[in-house]
Amino acid sequence: MEKPSQPASLPLTRASIVVAHEAIKPVIHRTPIFSSSTLSASLPNKNTLYFKAENLQKGGAFKFRGASFSLSQLTQEELAKGVCTHSSGNHAGALALAARERGVKCYVVMPDNSATPKVDAVRAYGAEITFCAANAPARAATLAEVQARTGATFVPPYDAAHTILGQGTALLELLAQAPEPLAAVVAPVGGGGLLAGTALAAEGTGVRVFGAEPAGADDCARGLGEGRRREDVKAETIADGLRTPVGVLNFPIIQEKVERVIVVSDEEIVDAMRLIWERLKLVVEPSGATAFAAVRSKAFQELGVAGPVGVIISGGNIDLSQPLPWSR
Amino acid sequence: MEKPSQPASLPLTRASIVVAHEAIKPVIHRTPIFSSSTLSASLPNKNTLYFKAENLQKGGAFKFRGASFSLSQLTQEELAKGVCTHSSGNHAGALALAARERGVKCYVVMPDNSATPKVDAVRAYGAEITFCAANAPARAATLAEVQARTGATFVPPYDAAHTILGQGTALLELLAQAPEPLAAVVAPVGGGGLLAGTALAAEGTGVRVFGAEPAGADDCARGLGEGRRREDVKAETIADGLRTPVGVLNFPIIQEKVERVIVVSDEEIVDAMRLIWERLKLVVEPSGATAFAAVRSKAFQELGVAGPVGVIISGGNIDLSQPLPWSR
Repeated sequence: MEKPSQPASLPLTRASIVVAHEAIKPVIHRTPIFSSSTLSASLPNKNTLYFKAENLQKGGAFKFRGASFSLSQLTQEELAKGVCTHSSGNHAGALALAARERGVKCYVVMPDNSATPKVDAVRAYGAEITFCAANAPARAATLAEVQARTGATFVPPYDAAHTILGQGTALLELLAQAPEPLAAVVAPVGGGGLLAGTALAAEGTGVRVFGAEPAGADDCARGLGEGRRREDVKAETIADGLRTPVGVLNFPIIQEKVERVIVVSDEEIVDAMRLIWERLKLVVEPSGATAFAAVRSKAFQELGVAGPVGVIISGGNIDLSQPLPWSR
Repeated sequence: MEKPSQPASLPLTRASIVVAHEAIKPVIHRTPIFSSSTLSASLPNKNTLYFKAENLQKGGAFKFRGASFSLSQLTQEELAKGVCTHSSGNHAGALALAARERGVKCYVVMPDNSATPKVDAVRAYGAEITFCAANAPARAATLAEVQARTGATFVPPYDAAHTILGQGTALLELLAQAPEPLAAVVAPVGGGGLLAGTALAAEGTGVRVFGAEPAGADDCARGLGEGRRREDVKAETIADGLRTPVGVLNFPIIQEKVERVIVVSDEEIVDAMRLIWERLKLVVEPSGATAFAAVRSKAFQELGVAGPVGVIISGGNIDLSQPLPWSR
């Protein structure tokens, strides 16, 4: 139903990520990196941490990278008909914003129980929203309907080559920005666009790659343990950006190139989030703090990774009209 | 009582701020600048805004600049005896941190009603705290006592040449970082260290300088209207960093070089603060959002400043265990 009408894809390699980076450099923010001696000193292994602040990316999340690269690979005819996607989260906003900046029409299918601020953001970026019932078949049917009506190209949130390659560009920047070589990098995993892209971008660099996944949505870690992708996900976690099952294209890349996916509790995520707010003065969403939660975990620290660790802060879109999670 | 035992001061000129910047560059963060097309588009004059994120400075506020420069100008004998100050806010933390990084002892006099997180921060930076009653005579007497006992040099929070010169370095960086020349810059005013330093740093650049002050602590704006410094301040504002009366050394600099001090309500400050959190994804304290509140105000927009405006975000130290101000 949701057949990606994407053009022939670039190969899933580090070289393609370099190509993607050149393509999107003029439109993305080169987000800054941050360190904190206090946070590093609090870790048993005293790893110097380099936080890549993708919460400061356009649209407030790394998703703008994949959306921008996907757009850049469409033909003029395709662009003239617009792009579409389904999402209740950061990908919808990112695609809407990237499309608006290029003067391209954007159609977004959102479940009718989506949070008001997310709907408002997508609308503010000028996308046309079609609501559907909050289940997968309704979503697929509605998207197919939108595609049939408009001829718009579907830009998938994570399970597509160009999305993965675009997301991998964050690590290219981090490696160039860090003042010393990294021993490892940790990225969160939901659908796996960011983690698979990060793993591809790390190829040949000697940087060890780890994933970070909430215990309440640990389909990727379980799938790795069982040797095959799980299609189900519990989705019982505060990290709303990570509630999706890992993608078909994403899973084998992770399986091959990621050393381990560290599973963390919601409590660990909230603790990490608060530390980032307090110490780095950055507004990050729970998903955005998950990689740091993994670095702080006993499981990661017991691996004894010595040296600097890159930590990808994936996003900062949080409903600030609600009480902060540590105050609930 | 609180006689500054500072060494002979550098002259209060832009050239001295350049000297100060060279002196502190190795120890401060060169904080990033941020823009937001959405925030700019929301202004009647559509000014491109360049936010200087001093909430990302060491210690979470610009105060680290002045503290670092003050320390750098002390002799080895003075450093051996340590430094001292009184403060319930960001200056105490900044001096404690700057002193610790240089291996210098630091003594801080704090009112016994200081907020726990601020006391904890100063203690975490290794300073020795002496509590006193929450009034000016008790504070002065206690500081004199500490100085008599230790021989420590008093580093004033704002009313001292080296403090002012250090704070002015933020604008030097902002001017170098902005991709185009600024038409104006806006900085908050409490004691006036940052605003006076900013005004000195702008000398000869053609950049117009404005102050931003909360209506509940508008002694500087009133003093400018009356033609002489007011010694009293109401201090009824959420912007706790701006509750101090403007300093003796600071006021005439502001009087001579600042075009106007814009007065904003607490409501305007909270609105500006929320926009910075939501759009820039930065944790800023109310004082830190006051300059942006001024830029958004009718009073400023009616001045018709055309072109890019620099906005100094002064700090990000806020008690995150409390409800956010727009939810209270």
